[in-house]
Amino acid sequence: MEQYKVIEIKESVFENNDRDAERLRQQLKEEKTFLLNLMSSPGSGKTTTLTRTIENLREEMNIAVMEADIDSDVDAETIARTGAKTIQLHTGGMCHLDADMTRQGLREMGTEDTDLVVLENVGNLVCPAEFDTGAVKNAMILSVPEGHDKPLKYPLIFQVCDALIINKIDVMPYFDFDLEKVKEFAHMRNPDLKIFPISAKTGEGVDAWCQWLREQVRDWNA
Amino acid sequence: MEQYKVIEIKESVFENNDRDAERLRQQLKEEKTFLLNLMSSPGSGKTTTLTRTIENLREEMNIAVMEADIDSDVDAETIARTGAKTIQLHTGGMCHLDADMTRQGLREMGTEDTDLVVLENVGNLVCPAEFDTGAVKNAMILSVPEGHDKPLKYPLIFQVCDALIINKIDVMPYFDFDLEKVKEFAHMRNPDLKIFPISAKTGEGVDAWCQWLREQVRDWNA
Repeated sequence: MEQYKVIEIKESVFENNDRDAERLRQQLKEEKTFLLNLMSSPGSGKTTTLTRTIENLREEMNIAVMEADIDSDVDAETIARTGAKTIQLHTGGMCHLDADMTRQGLREMGTEDTDLVVLENVGNLVCPAEFDTGAVKNAMILSVPEGHDKPLKYPLIFQVCDALIINKIDVMPYFDFDLEKVKEFAHMRNPDLKIFPISAKTGEGVDAWCQWLREQVRDWNA
Repeated sequence: MEQYKVIEIKESVFENNDRDAERLRQQLKEEKTFLLNLMSSPGSGKTTTLTRTIENLREEMNIAVMEADIDSDVDAETIARTGAKTIQLHTGGMCHLDADMTRQGLREMGTEDTDLVVLENVGNLVCPAEFDTGAVKNAMILSVPEGHDKPLKYPLIFQVCDALIINKIDVMPYFDFDLEKVKEFAHMRNPDLKIFPISAKTGEGVDAWCQWLREQVRDWNA
């Protein structure tokens, strides 16, 4: 049976989340642990993308995953099967994680000898974007069925992310989705955003995304 | 050119949203106006479903639509093309609407002679479910690409809804989506939930959903 802890995290008491996030990042730098904050809508394929990413990188680094959900352990079960160290965070109804909540998860999990921790944030394009979790980099997934107009409607998340994964490109023929338009809209919000079209299902495009992540982890932990 | 107002709504000052929502519902009852709160993830097809619904019902009732978004008027433009009275609410970053914010929109739009008002809530499965908007009924859309596990992961929204539309059934062959399982999971959360599998794109199943809505409006406005 797969092993993972379930943690009920508590609402943060810190007034200044930005300062707290900066403190957490500093601590991660000293420990040589890279934290990636992964955000998206419900059902965009975060867990499948993460499974692919772990398969791709696990030979070269120690990876751990914190699954944040309102309820249920569905994703933690899936990720634990990859063999990565996994912890399930229950937010008790809260729609996002802040730096202190992230720290609670990291502390429970233990990060000694961990090169890369991925925080799978609550499925939501709005609130998670408003709170710095202390992550070194932010990435988001937008899936083809959600439509190419999302950067127009949810500007902040595109602004705060370093990388945008466009998932489910295998079903592009069945949807009115314009890849060039989504790139244009996303770059309007954030000219520096790196964009990776992938299919987590077939594996297409996953190498380029993993190469970007590999470089980020190496630079941080150097 | 299509006409619609854009309103920047303000954060609510009421401490007791539940009482305020009850007051708004009472007022709608007196005015014989039915308010439907429509919720979903980003990209589930709320606007397309709404366009179909308006086409289906506009001969027999006066319909108005309030589009709530963080930013952009993409959806209001689409809805205004149906000829329905449309208003765009900008939430200024807020992830949900409460009763007072809904009232601000209704007041600006004017509801005299309107039988049905649809509030298209912010695309989010978490926060909108926590706030009673004063609507007579709540409905949500879950689309096939999002996956059948969503009632396990976002319990509250399934609990507070009267109707669940399962959209994009035309692409079911391309996804690992189990319609029977999603019904089972959703009814675990809410045994009274009415479930309508549809394709807003092809029109399949839309009649049954509209029939349910028609009966709700008639009962309320009788």
